[in-house]
Amino acid sequence: MTQAVNRFKADLREIRFVLFELLKFEDILGKQPFASWGRDEVDMVLTEIDRFAREVTGPLNPVGDRHGCRLEKGHVFTPPGFKDAWSKLYEAGWRSLSAAEDHGGQGAPFTLNAMAEEFLCGSNPAFAIYSGLATGAAEVIATFGTKEQQHNYLVNMFNGKWGGTMCLTEPQAGSDVGAAKTVAKRLPDGLYSISGTKIFITGGDHDMAENIVHLVLARIEGAPPGTKGLSLFIVPKRRISADGTLGEDNDVSVGSIEHKMGINGSATCVLNFGENDRCVGELVGTQEHVGMGQMFKLMNGARIAVAIQSLGVASSAYLNALQYARERRQGSHITQWKDASAERVPILMHPDVRRMLLDMKSRVEGIRMLIYKLTMHEDRATALASDDKQAGYHHGQVELLTPISKSYASDQAFRVCETAIQVFGGAGFLKDHPVEQCCRDAKIFSIYEGTNHIQAMDLVGRKLGMQGSQHFRAFLGDIGAFVAAHSSHPVLGNDIKSLGKTSEALGASAMQLLGWFQSGRIAMVPLVANRFLEMMAETAIAWLLLDAARVAEEASATLPEGHADRAFYQGKRHSALYYSRNVLPGVFYKAKTLQTEDLSALEIPDEAFATV
Amino acid sequence: MTQAVNRFKADLREIRFVLFELLKFEDILGKQPFASWGRDEVDMVLTEIDRFAREVTGPLNPVGDRHGCRLEKGHVFTPPGFKDAWSKLYEAGWRSLSAAEDHGGQGAPFTLNAMAEEFLCGSNPAFAIYSGLATGAAEVIATFGTKEQQHNYLVNMFNGKWGGTMCLTEPQAGSDVGAAKTVAKRLPDGLYSISGTKIFITGGDHDMAENIVHLVLARIEGAPPGTKGLSLFIVPKRRISADGTLGEDNDVSVGSIEHKMGINGSATCVLNFGENDRCVGELVGTQEHVGMGQMFKLMNGARIAVAIQSLGVASSAYLNALQYARERRQGSHITQWKDASAERVPILMHPDVRRMLLDMKSRVEGIRMLIYKLTMHEDRATALASDDKQAGYHHGQVELLTPISKSYASDQAFRVCETAIQVFGGAGFLKDHPVEQCCRDAKIFSIYEGTNHIQAMDLVGRKLGMQGSQHFRAFLGDIGAFVAAHSSHPVLGNDIKSLGKTSEALGASAMQLLGWFQSGRIAMVPLVANRFLEMMAETAIAWLLLDAARVAEEASATLPEGHADRAFYQGKRHSALYYSRNVLPGVFYKAKTLQTEDLSALEIPDEAFATV
Repeated sequence: MTQAVNRFKADLREIRFVLFELLKFEDILGKQPFASWGRDEVDMVLTEIDRFAREVTGPLNPVGDRHGCRLEKGHVFTPPGFKDAWSKLYEAGWRSLSAAEDHGGQGAPFTLNAMAEEFLCGSNPAFAIYSGLATGAAEVIATFGTKEQQHNYLVNMFNGKWGGTMCLTEPQAGSDVGAAKTVAKRLPDGLYSISGTKIFITGGDHDMAENIVHLVLARIEGAPPGTKGLSLFIVPKRRISADGTLGEDNDVSVGSIEHKMGINGSATCVLNFGENDRCVGELVGTQEHVGMGQMFKLMNGARIAVAIQSLGVASSAYLNALQYARERRQGSHITQWKDASAERVPILMHPDVRRMLLDMKSRVEGIRMLIYKLTMHEDRATALASDDKQAGYHHGQVELLTPISKSYASDQAFRVCETAIQVFGGAGFLKDHPVEQCCRDAKIFSIYEGTNHIQAMDLVGRKLGMQGSQHFRAFLGDIGAFVAAHSSHPVLGNDIKSLGKTSEALGASAMQLLGWFQSGRIAMVPLVANRFLEMMAETAIAWLLLDAARVAEEASATLPEGHADRAFYQGKRHSALYYSRNVLPGVFYKAKTLQTEDLSALEIPDEAFATV
Repeated sequence: MTQAVNRFKADLREIRFVLFELLKFEDILGKQPFASWGRDEVDMVLTEIDRFAREVTGPLNPVGDRHGCRLEKGHVFTPPGFKDAWSKLYEAGWRSLSAAEDHGGQGAPFTLNAMAEEFLCGSNPAFAIYSGLATGAAEVIATFGTKEQQHNYLVNMFNGKWGGTMCLTEPQAGSDVGAAKTVAKRLPDGLYSISGTKIFITGGDHDMAENIVHLVLARIEGAPPGTKGLSLFIVPKRRISADGTLGEDNDVSVGSIEHKMGINGSATCVLNFGENDRCVGELVGTQEHVGMGQMFKLMNGARIAVAIQSLGVASSAYLNALQYARERRQGSHITQWKDASAERVPILMHPDVRRMLLDMKSRVEGIRMLIYKLTMHEDRATALASDDKQAGYHHGQVELLTPISKSYASDQAFRVCETAIQVFGGAGFLKDHPVEQCCRDAKIFSIYEGTNHIQAMDLVGRKLGMQGSQHFRAFLGDIGAFVAAHSSHPVLGNDIKSLGKTSEALGASAMQLLGWFQSGRIAMVPLVANRFLEMMAETAIAWLLLDAARVAEEASATLPEGHADRAFYQGKRHSALYYSRNVLPGVFYKAKTLQTEDLSALEIPDEAFATV
């Protein structure tokens, strides 16, 4: 049961298509600030991270699931093999790709980091989040820390000598972060004494690094209630001496670790800070009461990371189901169903299995395109930083697409894994095959780093109306331009026209939402927020899939008959048509349900939900 | 982690409403053939089975999940407490409710048995299926066995001294049952020598009964291939001597047990028959090659049982989420969201939590109404057996509703459990709370006893056209009569009119399906079968929820202000309005996607699914 067999699968051709053919990654490669990163370097990373995922992290995925973590005498022990993989991960440089060169990083585009993350998370999400959060914590220090803090922490956090966490949640403060009670008292030397309990801390303790740098949200004595009174502190597990060596323990203890539905290889800890009044933290940067904004740097990154986890796991589940469907023989072809002696065929031949696989394929490809579109906007914003208008446009799309990607990708990942189990049939329910673990692991993606409803509220409550709705209008404008340019495409034209109509319906629904805000009917907003997010995600994905199909048709036309890429390109057409004919029409239905302004969920009396 | 705490919840008021107020159970109570069953007896069973579920089976549900089963020296050991619960189950008579009085049963309506099953399965599905299948196997012998077989097996199978299984699946024969290779050789004494391997055998071995009676599908030497060549055999684990005592072992061995995503308390076995050529079976009844039809007696029952499992688990997950939402305080009321010092409220106050709960409530109530409607049709067919026309109508509805209930209830159960986790937030992902187990357990429901696609094909390929589509037309006719009678209802009228239009769209989609059959375009059928089933289920459920709301409005009007039932009845209105405004419109969208006759899933070349 625990033998180390890789079950991770990835389709490198697909990733190359999305990055280079659809999203034109080469536009920004080989130029400042990414001058040392060209197509060859990207290809090399792709090949190597795939090998790493198959050989190192992939085989440990079921091991982590079966063994889980162990808390012994206050120390967390990770599953067998994790510690060794951690060393290899950092030796290979996978966690410093996008970090600045000053901090020991490689200065690669964010998109490249996302690509590596797709493999790390897809092959072993439980393992990947330890180092993912450590990197995220390091980036907060890189952005907001003092020079001294950067000097003291960053190199060791980017090279894996030290781990890192984000500590927001408390028993009474989950989605309601502002209810945090952890206290920071000013000490005479400018440091702070920290005390409080944090829960759900991923990698709150482990045996893979010699120290762990916690970023802790706490309220300085006398600070106002709510998120505005929170400050962010660097609280190492072991104190750092003046000469940079490790000092004494910093009074951070592990209360317990959780037993979970999935990602069992990841240690989810209860952390007690300052039980003995000896826990010392330093403020990130020099300003008090701005912790929430600083933490958002990490949170935004973490949200994108969850989208990528979702993508990696869903993609591998799909490819595993596909392989099973190719190998498993069962039943005869539908045209011979009456002939009991007919040849048994691979289940891939059965229409419903094909439907499930194409459904998964189009969803996985769709979320991949959406996520890399997001990361590419981020990179273009960086590359075009001197051009306010351009950079503003790209930043705006990042703002819009972050909650959409986190929420939609995580919901779809669960759906794709569920479908993968169904393709496997009874075998899918067994631990012998990888898909049931994918499904269990994926369930947390819709919850952590801000539940999907929090994402939806971020979208409709903040992002949609931001700067006079300018980002949203740009989004609709981009779709409109695509529709105008290609609505008479010989193969895709009708579906592109449907996309145009859907995009108009989406715009109308957004107007309706804004109307509720303006007329003070704000209770309607949370009722429909998730649905609106889904509508926007599905419209965006239909657009990207249709654009991908258009690009593929063009590329295919130049290839000789029998070229291996022709089938690949044809696949793009079928993904796009399936999605636009089976999923996209749902956007109209959802828009229609918005129009009924159904208030039943608010109007039902509390005691009417059940008599128990 | 394994302490025995009940986490099962049920709402008895709701069940009474569905049985007596909505579906008029009293019509058939107190009369032949159910003369000894009146309202009081039903109420007593309800009270007692609820107590049994909370006190006996419920507390063992997490225990079974954590411990799982153990195979030691060829014997399966069930989790701690299961054996004792088995005795109590049979002592209480829960497994003989609907059995004939001749066989030690109590002759109760099938609906009453279903009701008891809802509690047994909802509180502990892994435990309930052992005895559920044993009862199903006994019913096959009761229906098709010789008098002697009935005499030899039934009393001990209905009283729990012996268990029972159904053995269909083989490594190469899952959905394709006809590919079974297990062989039966005629012996001179009229018995048969059985040899072969069966997999996925629920309760294939266990320590709760002194013997296990396997019903085995096998092919008698020389029989034709496919399902038509299969015969059904009674193959006891230990042979039965002439005097009815247990004889020697019958060469049935357990190859292994499976490690699964859920229902860990249920032993899923690989069984080897006749490894030493000493396995003897007797034909069920006297006719060879009719095994598949006989097994269908059990399968139909098992399909309804899966629908009930789905209902029981989903209902308990909903009620657990509701309780958590009532108790867990987090965040302030939406009208005070800017005030960081505002009182923290139970999360039930938050619109999105209410939306999730009402969504779950309406789905759970909907599948409950659908399932009891089915069982009530079965009982009415029994009660009206002498009236061919009436009995035929009721039988026809059972035929239609069986695949719909199995498939839709199991899909919805998974959806409801997923939503329950989301209501719990991060806590839902922990084993400390019951919902993650519900979700893992529920995943198998869409697969076993015929995958949901097999159900959908049964519906569109067999049931829809049966007897000139007479059953389907009666179904639409019933909805039409409801719409005609109540479309000007003061509260529900508009929604009832929408139901009428939806029902017309459903009829049109059915015509489209029949058209594909007639024009030989049968490959379209499996592509849309699942979706059509969903459309039909959602139409039926909207109808039942609206009817329930109508009944509730009438009942409520007679009650004094402040009566406890008023809130309960109001809940019915909100379930109906929510479902008809948020779920039912999806039927139109699905109908629209059928019209596009999208063939992408068939047209995509095999090699275009991925390059790996």
